[in-house]
Amino acid sequence: MSKLVIVGTVAFDAIETPFGKTDKILGGAATYIGLSASNFKVNSAIISIVGGDFPKDHISMLESNGMNVEGLEIVEDGKTFFWSGKYHNDMNSRDTLATELNVLADFNPIVPEAYKDAEVVMLGNLHPLVQMGVINQMQNPGLIVLDTMNFWMDCALTELMQVIAKVDVITINDEEARQLSGEYSLVVAAQKIMEMGPKFVVIKKGEHGALLFHEDDIFSAPALPLAEVFDPTGAGDTFAGGFTGYLAKTGDFSYENMKTAIIHGSALASFCVEKFGTERMLQLSKKEIHQRLKQFKSLTQFDIQLT
Amino acid sequence: MSKLVIVGTVAFDAIETPFGKTDKILGGAATYIGLSASNFKVNSAIISIVGGDFPKDHISMLESNGMNVEGLEIVEDGKTFFWSGKYHNDMNSRDTLATELNVLADFNPIVPEAYKDAEVVMLGNLHPLVQMGVINQMQNPGLIVLDTMNFWMDCALTELMQVIAKVDVITINDEEARQLSGEYSLVVAAQKIMEMGPKFVVIKKGEHGALLFHEDDIFSAPALPLAEVFDPTGAGDTFAGGFTGYLAKTGDFSYENMKTAIIHGSALASFCVEKFGTERMLQLSKKEIHQRLKQFKSLTQFDIQLT
Repeated sequence: MSKLVIVGTVAFDAIETPFGKTDKILGGAATYIGLSASNFKVNSAIISIVGGDFPKDHISMLESNGMNVEGLEIVEDGKTFFWSGKYHNDMNSRDTLATELNVLADFNPIVPEAYKDAEVVMLGNLHPLVQMGVINQMQNPGLIVLDTMNFWMDCALTELMQVIAKVDVITINDEEARQLSGEYSLVVAAQKIMEMGPKFVVIKKGEHGALLFHEDDIFSAPALPLAEVFDPTGAGDTFAGGFTGYLAKTGDFSYENMKTAIIHGSALASFCVEKFGTERMLQLSKKEIHQRLKQFKSLTQFDIQLT
Repeated sequence: MSKLVIVGTVAFDAIETPFGKTDKILGGAATYIGLSASNFKVNSAIISIVGGDFPKDHISMLESNGMNVEGLEIVEDGKTFFWSGKYHNDMNSRDTLATELNVLADFNPIVPEAYKDAEVVMLGNLHPLVQMGVINQMQNPGLIVLDTMNFWMDCALTELMQVIAKVDVITINDEEARQLSGEYSLVVAAQKIMEMGPKFVVIKKGEHGALLFHEDDIFSAPALPLAEVFDPTGAGDTFAGGFTGYLAKTGDFSYENMKTAIIHGSALASFCVEKFGTERMLQLSKKEIHQRLKQFKSLTQFDIQLT
């Protein structure tokens, strides 16, 4: 069992979907990543920042799900990062209604002593300088996984490229892969991104699943076709948490094992979208996960006689 | 080995893609379906119509690929159906520049006597009344597969619904499935379409692969991620030809075998887009197909320990 360091936002989200809307509820990349990874009983630490307005109950909840919160800085006279968004009817696109950085504007991440030797580092979506700050504190990680988004490609590309050069795996969506590489074909895009540093590229395609690229190999993971998507918020982070959680648990960072990790991430993400915010992730049973992994198996399994 | 009846256009296409453009070249749904199915050495018949301007060489080529052409009517003083289109840079959308129905305007399909007992019928994209005309001539087919498109949903929905009620499998793309069912979720859309008649629904998602629905089961087939798509014309028909060709060859119309048939269809379609028109399909070796089927296997194979 490897230690897992998770850096990312711990936040308040207000979400509106065609099915309803929420007030400020618990959200943030690190929250979703940590909850998802906790299904593998890994020894994880959250590196993040919140304000004095952040309920102590939420922190206890993270701890009770096995996360070390020494690296979760609390700025008593500050306010927690807030994001508000509204999803369109197709659930594949959304408008950001508000982004209030608050305490995140001056975030200086501190990795707790006991986690500087962690083997797996999950860099959730944040300013590349913050992500680099975490990398620089690690002693000798076996696997660094980076999540990022188009926003940083637009406004902090130089810093982002420096982070990309240092990571083993990058997870981005299809449009971001095209933007980063300047290539339309995802195959060519992934090749170009691997030349920037990462040995593995994971391209997330939402309802169409995900692609894993490594050298000349490609693995295509489906998404579970769902009758209803209630709230997509956090699905990508839940995927990343399942992916890194499984890798930290097994300690095997091979291409073969990464394929399995992607299926675990996809299965966990398929739960996340069933309810608002983190609600579904907090009620998840081992039996349900087991059942869903079986569904992924039957979804993709076929018999071919190569005569 | 079952007999396979194929109805669809045999046509001239003029195609423009970012990679170049063609004059009038051989095209048409029945052409692509027939060429694709011919890889399984099935006993097939093409039911279609061409004008006196259609080269005898093309007809010989269809025959030399094992297709019976008794049902290919030649109207000596008529002109062959002509379609012209231009693909956008992303290759996922296109503009139709010209559609000249010509002899297709008065097409009355005749199934040759020797093929009225065929077990498999592939209804390529055509007016639903023509498709129904073929169904009505068949004695007792074991499997009828329908391909159609949004154009018929817009202008001949009543006739299309009558055809849909009579077929075993329908293949349509994701947007068409949504239009036909009025549902955004493809899972719900497929359920509603099954209530219209077909026991199996195949939803084609282009570069994202295809989904097969049957009762409560779902199978997700990937598309092969390609570095370069040269010309997507005919890919859907090539998929349908591989699908029905494999089913006709094996005579097994079970859900399990249909999954394998979809992989065969997807593999053949992945070749079709590598060159303009039918060019790639005419040079295809058994070895190349074998190799590509192996790629599909490695693309989707993963190992999961359900502990």
